[in-house]
Amino acid sequence: MPDFPDPKTMSKSELETGNVFAPSFDQNGLILAITCDANTNELLMAAYMNEESIRLTLETGFVHYYSRSRQSLWKKGESSGELQQFVEMRTDCDQDILQILAIQTGTGAACHTGRKSCLYRKVVAQNGKLQLETLDMPPLFDPAQKYKSQG
Amino acid sequence: MPDFPDPKTMSKSELETGNVFAPSFDQNGLILAITCDANTNELLMAAYMNEESIRLTLETGFVHYYSRSRQSLWKKGESSGELQQFVEMRTDCDQDILQILAIQTGTGAACHTGRKSCLYRKVVAQNGKLQLETLDMPPLFDPAQKYKSQG
Repeated sequence: MPDFPDPKTMSKSELETGNVFAPSFDQNGLILAITCDANTNELLMAAYMNEESIRLTLETGFVHYYSRSRQSLWKKGESSGELQQFVEMRTDCDQDILQILAIQTGTGAACHTGRKSCLYRKVVAQNGKLQLETLDMPPLFDPAQKYKSQG
Repeated sequence: MPDFPDPKTMSKSELETGNVFAPSFDQNGLILAITCDANTNELLMAAYMNEESIRLTLETGFVHYYSRSRQSLWKKGESSGELQQFVEMRTDCDQDILQILAIQTGTGAACHTGRKSCLYRKVVAQNGKLQLETLDMPPLFDPAQKYKSQG
């Protein structure tokens, strides 16, 4: 798979309406990937990808990210078993974000807290203060047990 | 509405399981907001918010972002008429992204190209090369006309 074209050499119109895939990586070589359930469109999580994650996701059929905290390639679910089966990759008008459509395998939890989605709390105003309220999205696994058992 | 608590003073467990809304703004005071159709879950766009955008979105019922290119508050649709009616705000496990659920008003186009969603192209491999293929998401308005008419 060839290197990607440099989006800075392309016109706004080429970037927005053309068929050239020229992802705008940031200064660290990363691009934001927003991952949604391929069946329901539900937002599952957001993380970063580098060139290698994009390549491996397309080649292997399983979603790979880049972990900024661990500074390394991250095959989602490699240790937890919560793999994401790749369905489709999209990009936006100015090609600085990716959308991944995937099927969450394993117990069905994209979030390390055991929930289907990382977006499990909503913002509510109470007594003039903003607070979080947990949505009806119970954990599908117990993170203390799951991560302990992988040592 | 009070200032937000500093997430750096909170434990991982407080951030992930508590009811304290402590958005992790970046060094520029911004947080990524991923906006989805409140009826279909469809990913419409992603942009940044600052404290004021969050406050105004909640207070006015219309989604406000912060434009990094114009370096100013951005009431979505203010010039185009494509306002986003606010429905719900969520945050993720570590509170460094927001999800906005909204109803896209106007012609129904969240994207400045006139399409419902900014994610209107998918990545396809052709002859060993990655290219973009435009999805069946026709423009709902003609951007040349719309932006011209607003001077």
